[in-house]
Amino acid sequence: MSTRATPGTVHGVGLGPGAADLMSVRADRLVRGASHVACFHKRGKQGQARRIVEGMLRADVVEFPMEYPVTTEIPLSDPAYAQALAGFYADCAAHLRRLAEGGEDVVVLCEGDPFFYGSFMHLYTRLSGAVPVQVVPAITGMSEAWTATGAPITWGDDVLTVAPATLPADELARRIKDTDALVVMKIGGNLAKLKTAIEAAGRLHQAWLVEYAAMPEQRVMPLADADTAPYFSIVLIHGQGRRP
Amino acid sequence: MSTRATPGTVHGVGLGPGAADLMSVRADRLVRGASHVACFHKRGKQGQARRIVEGMLRADVVEFPMEYPVTTEIPLSDPAYAQALAGFYADCAAHLRRLAEGGEDVVVLCEGDPFFYGSFMHLYTRLSGAVPVQVVPAITGMSEAWTATGAPITWGDDVLTVAPATLPADELARRIKDTDALVVMKIGGNLAKLKTAIEAAGRLHQAWLVEYAAMPEQRVMPLADADTAPYFSIVLIHGQGRRP
Repeated sequence: MSTRATPGTVHGVGLGPGAADLMSVRADRLVRGASHVACFHKRGKQGQARRIVEGMLRADVVEFPMEYPVTTEIPLSDPAYAQALAGFYADCAAHLRRLAEGGEDVVVLCEGDPFFYGSFMHLYTRLSGAVPVQVVPAITGMSEAWTATGAPITWGDDVLTVAPATLPADELARRIKDTDALVVMKIGGNLAKLKTAIEAAGRLHQAWLVEYAAMPEQRVMPLADADTAPYFSIVLIHGQGRRP
Repeated sequence: MSTRATPGTVHGVGLGPGAADLMSVRADRLVRGASHVACFHKRGKQGQARRIVEGMLRADVVEFPMEYPVTTEIPLSDPAYAQALAGFYADCAAHLRRLAEGGEDVVVLCEGDPFFYGSFMHLYTRLSGAVPVQVVPAITGMSEAWTATGAPITWGDDVLTVAPATLPADELARRIKDTDALVVMKIGGNLAKLKTAIEAAGRLHQAWLVEYAAMPEQRVMPLADADTAPYFSIVLIHGQGRRP
């Protein structure tokens, strides 16, 4: 354990959608001042969050890369998937806890907003109550995506539905039919199913695909024209509510 | 008109939920450098967006306050309401257009994210195509609200529904029953109706009220305990999706 009276804080810092200057002033200050940073990444890849802060870290920073033990090798429905991830999150949390108990502040770099479909939540629930944890909210990928289309997502009394493309096709179609504005995340391999669902809801001609929002590769196109989509994609339909 | 070849740009700059250091680095730079700023406000009030940038503006900045001609004196359903606002937005847009045509850049200060239920959209649609317009996305009030509750809003495959409390009670109840995670905006005088709808959906004990997210007056409480709520309030229910 620690001989210091005051534990450090684990900061879950949202970095926003991808451009370094879309980070909040608070996040920018925490990242530049950090003596310890931690970041999730997939095997063999640097990780989007780490890429965003390239050139911002202190020369003497200590990095703790957290490599997911599985991504798509095991299906989500397999209990082995949850088991592997649970052990992984427990190990990562234990390491961050030791650092904090030793008096060190740690910045965990998070894509988007940490509490909106983020991996940091799995550390947060394991660290809360044990050591101080602070979360910095951020611009979501969907905010950048609708900004990139050059049209507002919601007006007046519009209802917005945010759904993952991993849902069954009939549930997607039902929800898409029943909402004013729509954001769909986690596209990737679910694109064909999603297009079918949006067509079944009679709204394919209203839908846009935004690839790599706020990144140099950003691309906006009608969903009808898209045959493939990378994981960092968002599909959206703009609300058409009241506008004086 | 202008004798300059290059028109200025109207920047719709999202300032985020209320704390100055939750503004993006890009917004911070634009606000501090602005020679012209414009901001919506209600009669007799400074406006939340203007308050956020207090102390950040240049000494020689030229301010263009845009005072809403009506707020609650005329009901939303009255055609006179839409007419008054349409004229107001047209006048504001014309002024900003003249500035831009004269070569001046203008920063329009926007609470939250400009394209998410924001007033800037009404200027954007009137200025687009006439002069260059750029939008800076921002942290939404709802991101700050769920961060303030200390719990993630969405996990795994959760569906999130964002709805205004201005909807009819039965529609609110139906949608609240049919979603994993919930965010309700525009609370104010609709609080009693919203509580009834959430109770009808059987979820009152899961709901939280966040008042003045990211402002000094911020307060988080179970919705069941709340009898009144200011306009700057958000009600939310956290998703309970997959978590290894």
